[in-house]
Amino acid sequence: MERSVTLAMGAGGVQTNELIEGIFGKYFAGPYLTSDDAAVFDVKSGRMAFSTDGFIVTPWRFAGGNIGKLSVCGTVNDLACMGARPMYITASFIIEEGFSLDDLDEIARSMADTAKNAGVYIVAGDTKVVGKGQADGIFITTSGVGMLCDGVHTSGANARAGDKVIVSGDIGRHGCTILLARNDFGIDADVSSDCAPLWKNVEAVLSAAPDVHTIRDATRGGVGTVLYEIARQSGAGVMIDYEAVPVSSGVKGTCSLLGLEPLYLACEGRLVITAPPERADIIVNELKKLPDSENAAVIGEITAENAGRVAMKTAVGAIMLLSRPGGEMLPRIC
Amino acid sequence: MERSVTLAMGAGGVQTNELIEGIFGKYFAGPYLTSDDAAVFDVKSGRMAFSTDGFIVTPWRFAGGNIGKLSVCGTVNDLACMGARPMYITASFIIEEGFSLDDLDEIARSMADTAKNAGVYIVAGDTKVVGKGQADGIFITTSGVGMLCDGVHTSGANARAGDKVIVSGDIGRHGCTILLARNDFGIDADVSSDCAPLWKNVEAVLSAAPDVHTIRDATRGGVGTVLYEIARQSGAGVMIDYEAVPVSSGVKGTCSLLGLEPLYLACEGRLVITAPPERADIIVNELKKLPDSENAAVIGEITAENAGRVAMKTAVGAIMLLSRPGGEMLPRIC
Repeated sequence: MERSVTLAMGAGGVQTNELIEGIFGKYFAGPYLTSDDAAVFDVKSGRMAFSTDGFIVTPWRFAGGNIGKLSVCGTVNDLACMGARPMYITASFIIEEGFSLDDLDEIARSMADTAKNAGVYIVAGDTKVVGKGQADGIFITTSGVGMLCDGVHTSGANARAGDKVIVSGDIGRHGCTILLARNDFGIDADVSSDCAPLWKNVEAVLSAAPDVHTIRDATRGGVGTVLYEIARQSGAGVMIDYEAVPVSSGVKGTCSLLGLEPLYLACEGRLVITAPPERADIIVNELKKLPDSENAAVIGEITAENAGRVAMKTAVGAIMLLSRPGGEMLPRIC
Repeated sequence: MERSVTLAMGAGGVQTNELIEGIFGKYFAGPYLTSDDAAVFDVKSGRMAFSTDGFIVTPWRFAGGNIGKLSVCGTVNDLACMGARPMYITASFIIEEGFSLDDLDEIARSMADTAKNAGVYIVAGDTKVVGKGQADGIFITTSGVGMLCDGVHTSGANARAGDKVIVSGDIGRHGCTILLARNDFGIDADVSSDCAPLWKNVEAVLSAAPDVHTIRDATRGGVGTVLYEIARQSGAGVMIDYEAVPVSSGVKGTCSLLGLEPLYLACEGRLVITAPPERADIIVNELKKLPDSENAAVIGEITAENAGRVAMKTAVGAIMLLSRPGGEMLPRIC
């Protein structure tokens, strides 16, 4: 019989210890993992970034990853986008009674693998179990801290007219993957999630251009939503060359069939960067050398016109405003 | 009509901004609250503690607090128990579609009040919304960081034979409160949760006795479970004087009627401390001066005998082992 998570495993007693030692301890063991109330580590003086993100994606396993991998990537990337080297991560699990222990094992293993790949330690955790029907499978919240690189100040507010806008790869794969996994459209597209930890890619960008203005990861709402946020934060406009936006054939085909806009499909391993124009080519070249950013491209620029808005130039040369993001195209994408 | 949380509020677009600015921004505004991917603050070199905790308590509002207050207290207390001054907190919300916005407002206000009282900043957050029936109301995960006080090393592993065991107040009130709120036993007991942030109390203990060995907060599983953890971590035994354990008359009465053991009822604002015997009285005296620890008391000692176990001396002088914690007396207590 398949073993599964019980309410007693969330009660803080013997069964909780079995769960923690049997699964989380096995994969997360390391010099900083705590069995006290908090992990402890040395820090040097400097600027620290601190971030949190909840993950509720359904289905929890998808082409290219699972909720565990996603939960580590999400927090690693949030820190990286601030110009901070991700260092320590915590993980809080809310699990529905009856969730398979084998599946939990797979999720924890994925988290450990992704953390190792990203160069971070998972140092503390928490596990709560709710009754059958009181949650949908498993929810994970990760938080993380990292130290900012000296002299780096990245923010959506720093975008300036004249900046080039860069994306680190083809867009919309995560959203497209979840959409296809959840619905029986009869579409046989070769699409997998772009979900990846991006610190190494950000580090390459910062080495090439420490004066980069904005680094954001395009998650919920996709690249279009991030561009609107940058426009709002900076008070500038954004003009993108629609033909220059990299989109894989699988995503493009799916979007054509379903009438979707790739700019609003979620990514989980893609950066949106704004930088002074003279830095754009070197940033793209550095990104192209690394896994998960081989398809980096300049897709447009920051403008003084259209303040607070995102416009795009289409193939035929027409200029149109990208509609404002809103509504809920696909719940529980991440 | 009462306004409620919609799936679109979790999608990362316009409605998410409205939710964040309308409720969270209103209460959590401060010098470090971020609208970028992570909060940024200065740190000095030293030892840092980092902790996370998920909260799923039902009902979300109870006598003495709500899930918001609880979520800040939990992480503040986990840091405090490591001898760390809590500084920055993040909050991740997973909300069921249809949850009342007025209730969310009440929860956020409570979090802000508790954070202010505890001297911490809420610096970053995340909001996810799941469909009706995919979560039960609201779940909150908080994480926090703080700097360890110089020279302080607290751990369950540090308890030594001869140490006195102290509790910071009457035990079991949180568990008793939730139990009474959830079940219609027809018991009319005057009990409210002990839920409180305890950094000031811990700070007083550390000032009086920087060489304190163990500070733990007794949450899930209550004081009995924490004593068993200390016994396991330290390889020593624990002997408690059952008559010396402070229990309010409301909790005592409820436990008598229902056949429950107060030592296994959850607290959310109670410390379990072990310290060299010559420090015990000064610690208790300092605690008694402060709110939320007026009923502090020495309840026993760490022993070389009964390694890994918790024994207790009863009123008639008999010595018996406290049964090992296990099972799930009351799910979703915190």
